[in-house]
Amino acid sequence: MPFPPVRVRLDLAYDGTAFSGWAAQRELRTVQGVLEAALGTVVRAEPPRLTVAGRTDAGVHARGQVAHVDLPEAVAGDRLLLRRLNGLLPQDVRVHRVRAAPAGFDARFSATWRRYRYRVADGPDAVDPLRRTDTLAWPRRLDLDAVRAASAGLLGEHDFAAYCRRREGATTVRALLDLDGRRGSDGVLELTVRADAFCHSMVRSLVGALLAVGEGRRPVDWPAGLLRRTARADDVAVAPPHGLCLEAVGYPPDDELAARQQVTRALRLPAGDVAPRP
Amino acid sequence: MPFPPVRVRLDLAYDGTAFSGWAAQRELRTVQGVLEAALGTVVRAEPPRLTVAGRTDAGVHARGQVAHVDLPEAVAGDRLLLRRLNGLLPQDVRVHRVRAAPAGFDARFSATWRRYRYRVADGPDAVDPLRRTDTLAWPRRLDLDAVRAASAGLLGEHDFAAYCRRREGATTVRALLDLDGRRGSDGVLELTVRADAFCHSMVRSLVGALLAVGEGRRPVDWPAGLLRRTARADDVAVAPPHGLCLEAVGYPPDDELAARQQVTRALRLPAGDVAPRP
Repeated sequence: MPFPPVRVRLDLAYDGTAFSGWAAQRELRTVQGVLEAALGTVVRAEPPRLTVAGRTDAGVHARGQVAHVDLPEAVAGDRLLLRRLNGLLPQDVRVHRVRAAPAGFDARFSATWRRYRYRVADGPDAVDPLRRTDTLAWPRRLDLDAVRAASAGLLGEHDFAAYCRRREGATTVRALLDLDGRRGSDGVLELTVRADAFCHSMVRSLVGALLAVGEGRRPVDWPAGLLRRTARADDVAVAPPHGLCLEAVGYPPDDELAARQQVTRALRLPAGDVAPRP
Repeated sequence: MPFPPVRVRLDLAYDGTAFSGWAAQRELRTVQGVLEAALGTVVRAEPPRLTVAGRTDAGVHARGQVAHVDLPEAVAGDRLLLRRLNGLLPQDVRVHRVRAAPAGFDARFSATWRRYRYRVADGPDAVDPLRRTDTLAWPRRLDLDAVRAASAGLLGEHDFAAYCRRREGATTVRALLDLDGRRGSDGVLELTVRADAFCHSMVRSLVGALLAVGEGRRPVDWPAGLLRRTARADDVAVAPPHGLCLEAVGYPPDDELAARQQVTRALRLPAGDVAPRP
C-alpha cells in the first residue's frame, strides 16, 4: 500500500447455522473466510486479515459482532463500502456499520466485555418454528428461580477452569459481570451472560450447568461449587451452539482504547495465542 | 368410525418458507398435506381432513393458526396425541395445543377475526440475518407517520375489491378492525392488520400500498382512495409473502360459536367456496 492503511471497524451480524464458526479454516465455510473474500474483491488484492472481538464456534450466531481490518485509504474512505460489502456477502452475514476506527482501537484487545444470550424453549412443543434456528428446544420445564439463584453464585472474578476447554499455558481466570435469566413475552427462557472475556466453550458450559439446575438434576449451589476445581469438569454438558448469540461487545472511551489494548495483551498473550471464545 | 367422531381444535405454528402454502395440493409440500399425513399415521386410516381458520399462501408463516379435525374418540382422548403429532411432524411445523373443541366450533366459520403482522426492515443493511426468514428487506427508509396516517383511512367496513384477487361471485366487503404500524426494539417496522376475514392477497396488497406511501411514492390518502374502485387495482404491488405471519385468530364465547358459524356461512358460502385468505 502506497499510503499507511486505515483501520476500519466493522459491526456485523450472522446466522451461524451454515458456518463452521468464525475462524477461517481451509475448505470450510467460515464467517471470517466469507468476509475476507468479500474484502479481497473490494480491495482487488490479497484479502486483508480481519481481527474479531469474539471468535464464535460453529453454529453460534452473532448480532453485535465487532471486527477490524486495515484497508487502503481509498477503500476505507469509500462512502459505498458498506453497500458494496453487503452486495458481495451471502444473506446469512450482514455488515451493519463500517467506520474509521479511533486511534488505539483493536477489536479484540481493546474490548472490555462481551455479552451473549442463550435462548431455551422449555417444555414440549414450545418452540416457535420461525425461531428454531436460534432457540434450543428443551423437553422439560425449567425452574427460573433455581436458574437465577445458581447464576448469582457464579458472578465475579474466578478461575473458570471447570467451564473451559483447557489450553496449554492459558489462564482461565475471567470476570463474570452479568449472568441472569428471564422469560421473554413468548415464554422463552433467555440467559444473558457478560464477562470481560470467555475461554473456549465457557458460555455453553455455564448454560449446560444452569440447565441441569433448572430441571432439578443438580442442586442450586452446584455450578458455583465447580469453581473450586482446577480442570475441566466432565460432568458439565456443553449446551448446543444454536441457542447462543453474541449480542454486544463493549469498549472503553476512545482515549482509553490504547491503554486497554496493552493491558489485555499483557494478560492474554504471554501464554500463547488464546483468544476469547465462547 | 364405530362411535361419533370428536371434533378437535389444533393450535399450530409454522415457518412457511419451505411450504407451498396451507392448502393441500398434489405433489406439492403444503402445511395441510404434512399435517393430514401425520394425522393419518396416528389414526392408522385414511388421513382425516383439516379445516383451517386462515388459508395462508406459499411462503406466509403462522404463529397462531387454528384448525379443526374430527377424530375417533380413542385418538382424540389420547393424552399423548400432541407429543405423537409433533414427533411425526417436520421441524418447520409445531402443534402447540390439542383439545376437544366446544360444541358449535368450526375453525373457519366460527372465527370472528384474524390478525396478521408484517415485518419490514427498512434502510440498507438493516436486516438481522437471524430474522431474514420472516422480515422483508426494504432498501429505502419508510416514514412511519405517513404509514399510520394512511392506515387510519382504511379502517372500517369497506369493499376491498381494489385489494383483492377477484373470485367469481364472491363478496369483497370486509371489516378492517385494526391497521397500525410501529417500530420494534430492533428498529423493524411491524404492521399489524386485523379483520373479520381477508379475501385473497388482501393483507399483502394493503402492505404494498402502505409501503408506497411510506417511501413517498404515493400520497397519504391514496390507499383509502382506492376503496372507491370496484376491481383489483393493478397499481398496488402485492408485498412478498415472507414478511407476513398469521399471529392470532379470534372466536366468540363458547355459547355463541354455533350462531357465529351460521352467520358466516350465510355471508360467505352462497357465492361459492371462498375461504378467508390473506
